[in-house]
Amino acid sequence: MGGLRPWARYLLLVVAHLLAMGLGAMVFQALEGPLALQLQVQLKAELATFQAEYGACLPPGALEKLLGAALKAQAHGVSSLGNDSEASNWDLPSALLFTASILTTTGYGHMAPLSAGGKVFCVVYAALGLPASLVLVAALRHYLLPVLSCPSARVIARWQLTPAGAALLQAAGLGLLVASVFMLLPALVLWGLQGDCSLLEAIYFCFGSLSTIGLGDLLPGWDRNLHPVIYHLGQLSLLGYLLLGLLAMLLAVETFSELPQIRAMVKFFGSSGPMTAEDQSGILSQDELDLSTLPPAVPTSEQDEAC
Amino acid sequence: MGGLRPWARYLLLVVAHLLAMGLGAMVFQALEGPLALQLQVQLKAELATFQAEYGACLPPGALEKLLGAALKAQAHGVSSLGNDSEASNWDLPSALLFTASILTTTGYGHMAPLSAGGKVFCVVYAALGLPASLVLVAALRHYLLPVLSCPSARVIARWQLTPAGAALLQAAGLGLLVASVFMLLPALVLWGLQGDCSLLEAIYFCFGSLSTIGLGDLLPGWDRNLHPVIYHLGQLSLLGYLLLGLLAMLLAVETFSELPQIRAMVKFFGSSGPMTAEDQSGILSQDELDLSTLPPAVPTSEQDEAC
Repeated sequence: MGGLRPWARYLLLVVAHLLAMGLGAMVFQALEGPLALQLQVQLKAELATFQAEYGACLPPGALEKLLGAALKAQAHGVSSLGNDSEASNWDLPSALLFTASILTTTGYGHMAPLSAGGKVFCVVYAALGLPASLVLVAALRHYLLPVLSCPSARVIARWQLTPAGAALLQAAGLGLLVASVFMLLPALVLWGLQGDCSLLEAIYFCFGSLSTIGLGDLLPGWDRNLHPVIYHLGQLSLLGYLLLGLLAMLLAVETFSELPQIRAMVKFFGSSGPMTAEDQSGILSQDELDLSTLPPAVPTSEQDEAC
Repeated sequence: MGGLRPWARYLLLVVAHLLAMGLGAMVFQALEGPLALQLQVQLKAELATFQAEYGACLPPGALEKLLGAALKAQAHGVSSLGNDSEASNWDLPSALLFTASILTTTGYGHMAPLSAGGKVFCVVYAALGLPASLVLVAALRHYLLPVLSCPSARVIARWQLTPAGAALLQAAGLGLLVASVFMLLPALVLWGLQGDCSLLEAIYFCFGSLSTIGLGDLLPGWDRNLHPVIYHLGQLSLLGYLLLGLLAMLLAVETFSELPQIRAMVKFFGSSGPMTAEDQSGILSQDELDLSTLPPAVPTSEQDEAC
């Protein structure tokens, strides 16, 4: 690959990604297709049985009309079943969770704006709120990353690692810490609290939330009849988890993205010649000149206190 | 705010964000609560009418059981209504769209893995694919950003702007370009093609997709009975739109994040003293030393050809 022109390398990279996407799609298709089809067939059979047994007293299409209305409402987060006949699902904790899912771009979709005004506000709020959140995260990273790099300074001194080796170790350590504190631990808690989901589903939910994918197919406590106070406490915990977890995730991603090994990989695709020794070692102090970290040349009182 | 200690400034920033989130939640609540409640009441009334009219021939709970099953299936993307009785919704174009929604972290949720194997593969695929996508985007940004900054070089020369002013103009121009090509234009196309959605809903959908929020409440052509070929073409167009649009979005965000004005804002929260003249001018060449762009000190043949 070293002999190819840069544009050819980029093209190869893009093609490789598209192939990987296609392969992933085929695996999903193989895993999910039969099961989804089976469920669909089952449902249609239930519907047919229902129609056959009671269809005599039902006017044609009445059942489909009812079903259609209920399904459409659910697509917008309005449930037609359930005990709380007068409670709207836009109470304050739910609205907060929705707002957080917008600002973190997770977007579960279990609730969605129905009104035109709500949709407009959603777009405007996100258009203003997302950049603001990015600035907030950048500012917090600027504050927190020096704190996180203290342990590595001690490790470098003790084990006499190269800066690149120490950076890798620090990034791996941070990654493990974030994965256990913000993914495994909450998944275990969720699994313990919510009887009807498996540990796999809990991990799947935590991963989907922190990666901001937010499919929204599984949400804790959604279809259970819990005491409102407990339900709202749960929603507020989920809210806090989303915000803190995402911040931790972004810090970890930033730490990894500044690894000399990663930078060398990125530079490789653009360089027109073979990699130099300079590319390989990765000049750490220059690497820190970006939005999140600033040159450590100016020591501040917090940095001194943090270590 | 200049007189506060940095940690106090960060705290204020976080508190301000939480307040803004709370305010947003209250606005959503005010806009959506009544409407959602109204829809819920309406649905329950329909259900009650149905029961009253035909309940005599239906065993108690049979309808709720059927509804519950249909609703649960829809939450996982399996539809119980519709003409295509044998088609699974995990055909290749749909699976590709799902995979893309995972890799872009959009996560619409209109389809979701039902099987345990599918969930495991989802987590593993995303855990590997997301970092790979980030590297791809970083490499592409490294290639494309110099191309995008060519116009500003000419503008600086002609209008004799300061580097900071030129950077702002370039960022604003890029932002407008991305917004019109990737949000307004596709929204207009969608509005034209899909008769039953308003222009607002089309813009809402495009914005939700490109910001990777992906609520999934509105998806083009989802509940319409289109010819399969047209439907799949539509899905593939959506796929292409997601990928290209997101890349364009990330390029624009990166350009904005490197503006000296933004950097000064971020530095402000951490600096222990008043802003210096250096902070305010923003040294552009140093600013480019991050994962996406590399020092322009080494001119490459593409950069020469691009301008």
